[in-house]
Amino acid sequence: MDLKISQRMAAMQPSAIREIFKNMSDPSIIPFAGGNPSQDAFPVKELENIARIIFENNPTAALQYSVTEGYPQLREAAKQFADRREPGLVKEGDGCVITSGAQQAIQLAAQCLVDEGDTVLCENPTFIGALNAFRTCRAKLVGIDMEEDGISIDGLEAAIRDEPRAKLLYLIPNFQNPTGVTMSLEKRQEVYRVCKKAGIVILEDNPYGDLRFAGTHIPAIKTMDTEGIVCYCGTFSKIISPGLRVGYAIGPQQLLDKMVVAKQCSDVHTTILSQIICCQFLQSCNIGSHLSVLKKLYRGKCGLMLQAMRQQMDRAVFTAPEGGFFVWCVLPDRVGLMDFVRAAGEAKVAVVPGTTFLPDTAAPCSAVRLNFSAPSNQQITDGIERLGKVLDRFLR
Amino acid sequence: MDLKISQRMAAMQPSAIREIFKNMSDPSIIPFAGGNPSQDAFPVKELENIARIIFENNPTAALQYSVTEGYPQLREAAKQFADRREPGLVKEGDGCVITSGAQQAIQLAAQCLVDEGDTVLCENPTFIGALNAFRTCRAKLVGIDMEEDGISIDGLEAAIRDEPRAKLLYLIPNFQNPTGVTMSLEKRQEVYRVCKKAGIVILEDNPYGDLRFAGTHIPAIKTMDTEGIVCYCGTFSKIISPGLRVGYAIGPQQLLDKMVVAKQCSDVHTTILSQIICCQFLQSCNIGSHLSVLKKLYRGKCGLMLQAMRQQMDRAVFTAPEGGFFVWCVLPDRVGLMDFVRAAGEAKVAVVPGTTFLPDTAAPCSAVRLNFSAPSNQQITDGIERLGKVLDRFLR
Repeated sequence: MDLKISQRMAAMQPSAIREIFKNMSDPSIIPFAGGNPSQDAFPVKELENIARIIFENNPTAALQYSVTEGYPQLREAAKQFADRREPGLVKEGDGCVITSGAQQAIQLAAQCLVDEGDTVLCENPTFIGALNAFRTCRAKLVGIDMEEDGISIDGLEAAIRDEPRAKLLYLIPNFQNPTGVTMSLEKRQEVYRVCKKAGIVILEDNPYGDLRFAGTHIPAIKTMDTEGIVCYCGTFSKIISPGLRVGYAIGPQQLLDKMVVAKQCSDVHTTILSQIICCQFLQSCNIGSHLSVLKKLYRGKCGLMLQAMRQQMDRAVFTAPEGGFFVWCVLPDRVGLMDFVRAAGEAKVAVVPGTTFLPDTAAPCSAVRLNFSAPSNQQITDGIERLGKVLDRFLR
Repeated sequence: MDLKISQRMAAMQPSAIREIFKNMSDPSIIPFAGGNPSQDAFPVKELENIARIIFENNPTAALQYSVTEGYPQLREAAKQFADRREPGLVKEGDGCVITSGAQQAIQLAAQCLVDEGDTVLCENPTFIGALNAFRTCRAKLVGIDMEEDGISIDGLEAAIRDEPRAKLLYLIPNFQNPTGVTMSLEKRQEVYRVCKKAGIVILEDNPYGDLRFAGTHIPAIKTMDTEGIVCYCGTFSKIISPGLRVGYAIGPQQLLDKMVVAKQCSDVHTTILSQIICCQFLQSCNIGSHLSVLKKLYRGKCGLMLQAMRQQMDRAVFTAPEGGFFVWCVLPDRVGLMDFVRAAGEAKVAVVPGTTFLPDTAAPCSAVRLNFSAPSNQQITDGIERLGKVLDRFLR
């Protein structure tokens, strides 16, 4: 029988990136398309040791059902961890929910705040996983153009004027996915002021915040929140392991209480073994020294990619991120985006077309996102060399 | 700021059971309210060993991002495992998706099939987690009365006549939660015939199917499906570990493709460490002998509870399940349900009022659900003795 799919899902397509993933098992393809941490970044020995101790000491706690909010000690540890990096982030009365990756935090927040036909404002371009979560809520997506120091404040104000049903502003202020751009302190303050005035909730996603390898720390918008309108999402995916699927949301208890109800209906609770592993890692390992190692690793990879791009893709325009996993590369005008992506694929370099990250996928875009965290140094060098040659062919 | 919660979530309340859970850390309370496997049921040594080998041999695979559909070897192993117990369950062209517990399979299926205002038919009473998942889709819930051998077929036919927007029928044919009732073969065939004729998708949830400790196997409705209208949900929560959060859906590829898209937006993928642990357990351990141990354990606990109830609660009417985790106990007419539940709580016995499991929570109900899997034998004996005394007080 031909099944009738619900309206909210009928038009939804698989994420282009996740689909690309399926073909990434071919080791001859250079993986600039994904967003994986480096395989050298996992604290394997520590995690192995922690897992062993969990099974030795209290296996039942790691195997039995648990509470939806999350492992209590991890909720405390996550709050402390976030508040240490972002002093003032955790406000009195804030809740903390452990989620199955930050993706689930985004999805739950949208599910609890956005009705069909409401508008979600976001950076343009932005993280495809968030866009798709908003789409399943049947939200109207309105992208706000990015500038070198974050979204256009004029654009934000215009969008709020034009969209009376704007409910939520989704932002990745640090080393944004996909652009690598970091929002300035002034813009963060302006964004908060504008949203406070308009009564718009800010969903602040900070997956890469622990991985600043250049420049100076800029406080999270959440630290500025005096009104309880900011929900902050963090994750252990980029600094411990994405496979464990552990993220968290910190924000107004009223919202988090509803997110917990929604989470009960979704997966009851996040894998408790994963939660205890992350908790023990935060509590018993030297997280500062681990992050130093990661920052050095990614600083090196990013530097290598940018250096190669300056030499071999100098006719493209690209960002120089201060952290995170991605470089955004705008191709010269006369290069067709999809032709370039296809040609790159033929040269065995996987890149994601920038259109993937647009709230309006039919809008024009001539950029690709390049990931530097997953490929090896050799792959970075080889991959940019190949992309340079592909680009040259188009510009000949 | 007072946040405006979305319509789909505004009226949703936390599951009464999950809330009761929070108070279960008090060891003096006898836990008849939950649905946990026995803490003696976890194959701890095997899981410890498997986890150690994973970290030794291929930690990166267990820590890195993975594909949304699930770990390929587990998808195969889950299909084989389900098809071995239910010959003919996996049809040509069926897909299999690994989910974060069967709860997520239910939620994703509903999300992909049910539009706001559509009707979901279900057993009355039924599993609260499924009801709440349907509620977040803003479905209209219509319960069909339970008889000793499963739902009333007359009731099902009447509901289909009355509900032109009926899209989905949710069923737990084996040792149903909360009633412990098993649907007869004849009724399964009738249900399938009626739904096929009406074009209604059947969501067949079989969390306890591996735990039949009495009576004879009755084939799943999925095995009868010639039209691709049955989506089958299974889980490793009751036979390996619920804390790992690994379940699966097997069904028509068209539906499962959409469920994968919805899952991408929800949690990207299920914890891969959990998936590999379950996969290795299925592949390398003697699952048959493990299940024999579990069945013996739960047969003993169930028998103990029923024996005690016959002696001390003989004025209540209760089911004698052939498997699963629950006994459904209907109180005599003149006992007020909530008064009884409160008095039980004062006697330090946690039970769930039957109203929790009703599609229409305002409907009359005079039953409680009693869980026999989690409490120790001593707790079962003591708990029923206390409940018997509480009941006697009401009937004095």
